[in-house]
Amino acid sequence: MARPMDITREFAAVILAAGKGTRMKSQVHKVLHPIGGRAMLHHLMASVNELSPRQTVVVVGSGRDQIESAVAGRAATALQEPQLGTGHAVQQAAAALAGFTGDVLILYGDVPFVRPATMQRMLDRLHADDAPAVVVLGFEPADTLQYGRVIAAADGTIEKMVEHKDASAAERACRLCNSGLMAVRGPDLFALLDRVGNDNAAGEYYLVDVVNVARADGRKSAVVVTDDPGEVAGINSRGELADAEAQWQRFRRDEAMAAGVSLRAPDTVFFSYDTVLGRDVTIEQNVVFGPGVSVADGATIRAFSHLEGAKVGEDCQVGPFARLRPGAVMEKGARVGNFVEMKNATLGEGAKANHLTYLGDADVGAGANIGAGTITCNYDGYFKHRTVIGPRAFIGSNSALIAPVRIGADAIVAAGSAVSRDVDEGELRMVRAEQLVKPGWADRFHDAMKKKKAQERSAGKKG
Amino acid sequence: MARPMDITREFAAVILAAGKGTRMKSQVHKVLHPIGGRAMLHHLMASVNELSPRQTVVVVGSGRDQIESAVAGRAATALQEPQLGTGHAVQQAAAALAGFTGDVLILYGDVPFVRPATMQRMLDRLHADDAPAVVVLGFEPADTLQYGRVIAAADGTIEKMVEHKDASAAERACRLCNSGLMAVRGPDLFALLDRVGNDNAAGEYYLVDVVNVARADGRKSAVVVTDDPGEVAGINSRGELADAEAQWQRFRRDEAMAAGVSLRAPDTVFFSYDTVLGRDVTIEQNVVFGPGVSVADGATIRAFSHLEGAKVGEDCQVGPFARLRPGAVMEKGARVGNFVEMKNATLGEGAKANHLTYLGDADVGAGANIGAGTITCNYDGYFKHRTVIGPRAFIGSNSALIAPVRIGADAIVAAGSAVSRDVDEGELRMVRAEQLVKPGWADRFHDAMKKKKAQERSAGKKG
Amino acid sequence: MARPMDITREFAAVILAAGKGTRMKSQVHKVLHPIGGRAMLHHLMASVNELSPRQTVVVVGSGRDQIESAVAGRAATALQEPQLGTGHAVQQAAAALAGFTGDVLILYGDVPFVRPATMQRMLDRLHADDAPAVVVLGFEPADTLQYGRVIAAADGTIEKMVEHKDASAAERACRLCNSGLMAVRGPDLFALLDRVGNDNAAGEYYLVDVVNVARADGRKSAVVVTDDPGEVAGINSRGELADAEAQWQRFRRDEAMAAGVSLRAPDTVFFSYDTVLGRDVTIEQNVVFGPGVSVADGATIRAFSHLEGAKVGEDCQVGPFARLRPGAVMEKGARVGNFVEMKNATLGEGAKANHLTYLGDADVGAGANIGAGTITCNYDGYFKHRTVIGPRAFIGSNSALIAPVRIGADAIVAAGSAVSRDVDEGELRMVRAEQLVKPGWADRFHDAMKKKKAQERSAGKKG
Repeated sequence: MARPMDITREFAAVILAAGKGTRMKSQVHKVLHPIGGRAMLHHLMASVNELSPRQTVVVVGSGRDQIESAVAGRAATALQEPQLGTGHAVQQAAAALAGFTGDVLILYGDVPFVRPATMQRMLDRLHADDAPAVVVLGFEPADTLQYGRVIAAADGTIEKMVEHKDASAAERACRLCNSGLMAVRGPDLFALLDRVGNDNAAGEYYLVDVVNVARADGRKSAVVVTDDPGEVAGINSRGELADAEAQWQRFRRDEAMAAGVSLRAPDTVFFSYDTVLGRDVTIEQNVVFGPGVSVADGATIRAFSHLEGAKVGEDCQVGPFARLRPGAVMEKGARVGNFVEMKNATLGEGAKANHLTYLGDADVGAGANIGAGTITCNYDGYFKHRTVIGPRAFIGSNSALIAPVRIGADAIVAAGSAVSRDVDEGELRMVRAEQLVKPGWADRFHDAMKKKKAQERSAGKKG
Repeated sequence: MARPMDITREFAAVILAAGKGTRMKSQVHKVLHPIGGRAMLHHLMASVNELSPRQTVVVVGSGRDQIESAVAGRAATALQEPQLGTGHAVQQAAAALAGFTGDVLILYGDVPFVRPATMQRMLDRLHADDAPAVVVLGFEPADTLQYGRVIAAADGTIEKMVEHKDASAAERACRLCNSGLMAVRGPDLFALLDRVGNDNAAGEYYLVDVVNVARADGRKSAVVVTDDPGEVAGINSRGELADAEAQWQRFRRDEAMAAGVSLRAPDTVFFSYDTVLGRDVTIEQNVVFGPGVSVADGATIRAFSHLEGAKVGEDCQVGPFARLRPGAVMEKGARVGNFVEMKNATLGEGAKANHLTYLGDADVGAGANIGAGTITCNYDGYFKHRTVIGPRAFIGSNSALIAPVRIGADAIVAAGSAVSRDVDEGELRMVRAEQLVKPGWADRFHDAMKKKKAQERSAGKKG
Repeated sequence: MARPMDITREFAAVILAAGKGTRMKSQVHKVLHPIGGRAMLHHLMASVNELSPRQTVVVVGSGRDQIESAVAGRAATALQEPQLGTGHAVQQAAAALAGFTGDVLILYGDVPFVRPATMQRMLDRLHADDAPAVVVLGFEPADTLQYGRVIAAADGTIEKMVEHKDASAAERACRLCNSGLMAVRGPDLFALLDRVGNDNAAGEYYLVDVVNVARADGRKSAVVVTDDPGEVAGINSRGELADAEAQWQRFRRDEAMAAGVSLRAPDTVFFSYDTVLGRDVTIEQNVVFGPGVSVADGATIRAFSHLEGAKVGEDCQVGPFARLRPGAVMEKGARVGNFVEMKNATLGEGAKANHLTYLGDADVGAGANIGAGTITCNYDGYFKHRTVIGPRAFIGSNSALIAPVRIGADAIVAAGSAVSRDVDEGELRMVRAEQLVKPGWADRFHDAMKKKKAQERSAGKKG
């Protein structure tokens, strides 16, 4: 939890997301690939929002349509076209921030897991007594690789920012690297950027050069160091995406266990960013949570279950091999068993659908029993219709309930019935032809078929 | 395998299980949380029982009702109320052990994986020529953390037991730690405990102090050291529980492979403490074994299968996506395929139920073929009834067999039949209405629905 | 990619596979155990074949029938009986290679992952200017264990081959070990082997001794060193088999991600050696690919799906909980949902089978909708029959289609129908009995059953 902002200060976030992300080999823009079921850009925006920014500007370029629609109503966008470096990218946000006099925090759409507390530390540092012009976020990776180094004094005052390729041996021995994240007062930022040049091999405008420009003016810059290099890890390939997902899942599982959830085999349980779990919930092996699931106290999610957009009530039991789709609601003590699918359907208190069933667009009353192989026929090829089943009703196995249809309280539907008209309370509905008996027919059939099989075999041998 | 007890000696086990276990955040008592499907307390009791104790006393306190019912008939219990430390806990077992003159082994319900051989070594040490008053189990953890140290001579004679906080730098450098497990002769034990005081910060009576009391009498104590720190690892949180489960599963998988079982992806197979597997059994990815399963030679359990209380015969094939529930019995060469559930049901030699079927409370004869989508309707909302299917019978797809019902040998049930009366041997039973034909009806329906859809769309646009 | 062979040179491969492999505890021969769904021997043969050998000879002994049938038509076999060592094994290939004057590459069936480029380097080294008589493949394992050492000069000239047990301390410090793989010119090979003796503890003829025999003739041998010790790892137990499988799967997953496939949780996806995946394919958690699967661009395989011998078209969606068996073909945009099985069946463009369905031996036209619980009844106990469903047909839920049967274009089958006769285009087919209504019957049944339950309970108490 970040400490509250000084209310006399305001900040805006600029998120760079214009890059192509070619290493992802995807038609989906890199920053829109999901982790825990949420686009990495949205993870980052959610973290920023914990600090209540005055404004967020996402700089787009490649794949701009996708990003514009993903952030519509949540952030402004600024177009970078062509793409001439990180400094140039930030400059494109100038129009959107015209007149804004607060601080600007510069983030990257493909570095989604920076903690709000770290962002806050950067902003606070900007307003420390020594009032640096620029605050850079540094980190100490296990392997410094090709990262640019931050040469800084013990108090965080930056002496020099140096690219790996230009660094001396002594500088390379320095393990403090530049994450690229930065905090600068708005008016400073664009003034400094205006003076950054592109006199380098790539002909690009580098954001990091604002530190040099500031120094030329006799102004100091400072580094804030994160103790968790993981939070500034960039995601540039599907391999790195998968690693980030794995790391996120591990974090989320540990959090669930610490809160009193039993996970039989944590590595096999996959959460979504918004999964809500109660106390003494048990989750067995191989369970996948899509977005929008809540599970109340004491419920058990058995092995091989898949849940999305579902609400599981107290003491419910789900699975094994159950699938809850969006709009599935299970009330207290309800049970959904193996090979059962629920969609846009409610299962009342203590009601059961234990085997091989499809409950779609249905309301099932408390205590009702849905027999094995029951199907709600909710779709006629054009429209969806609703099935309403009363409390304590008993739906015999292998029945088809042809919606729209209502089954009254305490009613019974005989096994194997295709019910096309409403069933009253306490009524028995049976839809079943006569039991046609053909004594000896099967014996004759077996004889004939065995003969035919034998003929085929001998024909096969001759042929 | 522990070596046989000296028959002139007897021992009793005292298992401490009175603690609250608040870090588990669970209404289930800590020592009753399962590993490999068995409560950790029961794992420990099973290990103790390999050494044939004269008696086992479980000291209970918090959550006593749960533990008392879990050990009923298997061990005595003694109540510790209030809970004033480990020494005090052991004292509560005095009444249950009144008159017992053998050895006492002190164990912990949340340290479930101590090996019988280690317990035996502790008891044997007690009767070595130097006859120590107290035997302590020591271990050398990777990280000595806050553990109390055992300062001992090379022959295991204990010079000093010292708490981490009271230890000198030299003592802290000692890597031998106190597991808390202890062996003491019964008469000694309670005499020593009577003289242990609670003059410490917590005001508790510590078991470890019996070593000091013995020394005051000029009696020596000795340490036995385990070479596997894992066996004395305590389980105090759900995270540690999950780690213990993972470690147990790895051990069990390696054991299965060494015995000739093929595991395609060992990490995805979950065994129960009592799973029995034959030779040349193949287990594919993602298989979960609940308690009570045996799988005979040559059987294959395919991916995504879930088995509990089931008996799988030689050369059977199960899954993928099969669920065998308690009472499922498959005889030689039988097959259960995808989306099939068996419960309290027998599938005879070579019989098959390959697709989308529920076999509950049923007996299926040898060589019978259960068509896709067959449901045994075993429940009328009040009572369960049995379905009996004869050898070589053929149940057509999508049939409902309404129990109690018998299908004779070689009989055929036509597809889609709801069978409510017995079918004789060699008979054909068909329950099917006439094929009602409405030429052109579908075309007219499509036209009408398309029109309606179009109207809705245009209404939607106007609205 | 190996560089092309010098066309003036030819080589033959000799693969040793006569050993018992007792540590596998299996009736299946060790080299036939699968990795990624393909026998390890076949992995090795596929790698050899990339270099176009003139001939491959597999030396068999224990379990020869299994191996002979596994390589029939792909390689010659030579029998080693009894088994008197590796040198003796290679000698058995002499007859099969009579008159062959090219090079011979000696490989091991239980060392399946040697890269073609490494084999090529061995063959090339044999023809270097210094023309060694024998080329040995060396490796530097993390742990040199009991491996024989290769004492060699910097240019690869072998000074001495020494068994671990005979090695001096200085020799043991050498980390270059003998993999057992070898390249020798054919005429040299058998001449050298003829002079290898068995004057050792085991009384066996060791292949490695050809180096000594050559040296006695004043001819040099050379070592080629692989930088990847993993490629010469032998597989001798099910544990090592599982490790090799895990390593192979990791490699395959990374390859898929690098090529633009999204894997939500790579560790839970299992590929087959021949799985083909398009661009922007998404694979969710817990998916198993058996042999023979291709997935086209933009398709999504959802969680808990199992595919074998199936073709998934562009933009298709499969699962969760779907099973595609051999012969399943999904055309563009088709969908197969939960608890659905397809076998030897085609689902036309945009057609859907979303719930609890079995499509076996069926052709489903474009845009058709297969309702929940539909079963194709393709088997009469003796023969399989085909179901043909026309474009845009609508099969109502819980229907049974009794093959052979044809459903015309745009036709509708009413829910719960068992269709035994062809349905024309645009026709409605309904097979459904009358809706039998029994008002109040259910209420009376509930009363009677509750009474019976109560009686049973009170009888139980008395009894």
